Amino acid sequence: MREPEIIELFLKHLWKEGDLPLGDDAGAVRFGDEWLVATNDMLVGKTDVPDIMTPEQVGFKAVTMNVSDVAAMGAKPMGFLFSLGVPWDVERDYLEGIAEGIEKGLEFYGVPVLSADTNEADDLIIDGVALGITERLLTRSGARPGDLVCVTGDLGRAVAGYLVWREGLEVPGKTRKSLYKKFLEPKARVIEGVKLGGIANSAIDVSDGLAKELHLLAEMSGVKIELSSEKLPIGDDVVEVAELLGRDPVELALSSGEEFELVFTVEQEKASCLDFKFSVIGRVFEGSGVYIDGKPLPPLGWEHFDRKLLR
Amino acid sequence: MREPEIIELFLKHLWKEGDLPLGDDAGAVRFGDEWLVATNDMLVGKTDVPDIMTPEQVGFKAVTMNVSDVAAMGAKPMGFLFSLGVPWDVERDYLEGIAEGIEKGLEFYGVPVLSADTNEADDLIIDGVALGITERLLTRSGARPGDLVCVTGDLGRAVAGYLVWREGLEVPGKTRKSLYKKFLEPKARVIEGVKLGGIANSAIDVSDGLAKELHLLAEMSGVKIELSSEKLPIGDDVVEVAELLGRDPVELALSSGEEFELVFTVEQEKASCLDFKFSVIGRVFEGSGVYIDGKPLPPLGWEHFDRKLLR
Repeated sequence: MREPEIIELFLKHLWKEGDLPLGDDAGAVRFGDEWLVATNDMLVGKTDVPDIMTPEQVGFKAVTMNVSDVAAMGAKPMGFLFSLGVPWDVERDYLEGIAEGIEKGLEFYGVPVLSADTNEADDLIIDGVALGITERLLTRSGARPGDLVCVTGDLGRAVAGYLVWREGLEVPGKTRKSLYKKFLEPKARVIEGVKLGGIANSAIDVSDGLAKELHLLAEMSGVKIELSSEKLPIGDDVVEVAELLGRDPVELALSSGEEFELVFTVEQEKASCLDFKFSVIGRVFEGSGVYIDGKPLPPLGWEHFDRKLLR
Repeated sequence: MREPEIIELFLKHLWKEGDLPLGDDAGAVRFGDEWLVATNDMLVGKTDVPDIMTPEQVGFKAVTMNVSDVAAMGAKPMGFLFSLGVPWDVERDYLEGIAEGIEKGLEFYGVPVLSADTNEADDLIIDGVALGITERLLTRSGARPGDLVCVTGDLGRAVAGYLVWREGLEVPGKTRKSLYKKFLEPKARVIEGVKLGGIANSAIDVSDGLAKELHLLAEMSGVKIELSSEKLPIGDDVVEVAELLGRDPVELALSSGEEFELVFTVEQEKASCLDFKFSVIGRVFEGSGVYIDGKPLPPLGWEHFDRKLLR
């Protein structure tokens, strides 16, 4: 069975959802005047961990990917839980590296561990859970016509780093370092998420690529989004890799997953309240669909791009 | 590496715990005037799922084992999350059974799903997370000299059912049905847990066998516990299996894991406030250790008993 079929099958049977329908970065329940936000994300060795990743990077990423979903809801992370599955013959050093990576992640994001569980399993499994709290919930369905479409940081380095590694591309050391930083050690935008919680209208984190996330945002908000390709924050290192592969850097930026940047929409007047760096990449209109430079943008994520590019 | 070594390694690296130190049934953080309780427990096909279990029972149990830990903290379950790992070639009927089991569990305990995640994995993995809320936290460290030691329900059927299945014991249909009900479809004591939250001094759920749980309770509370074997709630069906195996039914009751009954200690005067069925099986004293009928009770769980009995 393919993943979408499995998800569909389970959705049919989920008896009752929280106070927010499933389909956002995280689930949420009312908790007095606030919202308790909860999310989980499982990392499986075989499919999610490239050989080049150190165990410290694996542990850190298990924290990042969950904390990022909490941040995308505008919530402050307040706790982390994890279940670990490992073959009993795993090497002590490898496991210690994972523990150190989780430790560093918790310290970096300032989050305590509430519960942990260890088990024997055939493959490495780290299932992380992050909890968060916010007075105002930032969802995928809150974008309104007139909003600016914005993104934190830059886009494309995660996939460019992956391609440099997988294709063995020759790039200068400085370029490789910059790309690998994002590919192997991405960081969640926690502070930005908390600040956006009070100000933005909608948000989503870039897990599967900007194009896919914007389609989700447009669909769930019932709006049209128009992007301007020249506004996309793309670094010279990504352009360099795109040239080596004979591709368009914009395509890389649109399809690059696991960037963990936050895409958000905000009223123009309120954008000036945001005291961190971000790029305005487009605008929300009445209507439906996502357009780039006036043309429809297909909702393609990294997998499609990868097939088209290299297989 | 063995599980205790892995746990020790991780404990060394866990940067910061919640507002309650790790080591209880669940973790907890302060949330205004209340406590938010969170726990996770991973179910792995190869080690946790006997062939005889239907997928519905597997799904239900994934909910039960987590909800039970929340109940043991005196908290009301308020949300469930799960991550699923399955081989992509899993049969649709099997997966649908698991979904139905989770659905039934959520309905039975009245808990909404907040978040779910699906992944490809070599073996079946269900990592469940339960969140709960309580004004007063019931821990493993609150037992006080003078308290009564009590347990909900009855003990021993889980392991007796397992032995009937594994050893192919011949027992009457009625006995088998009663034992398999507990072995394959255990239920968490959610209502009892909520009621205990306001009244009892300490609690723990029976995951690894009564003897192990009482040792944890005595150690973490800094008290001595004395049990009376004749007070243990052991059904005739468990006695029947013990006789077939030439063993003492008390030994079965003390070592039977995954019973999901709640063991708790409560002041004698307050015990009458509890409006559900339970057995008084012993008493808390100053000192240390666990005794049964005046003799020291070894902290042995199911694994030891199993080796002793059958290998």
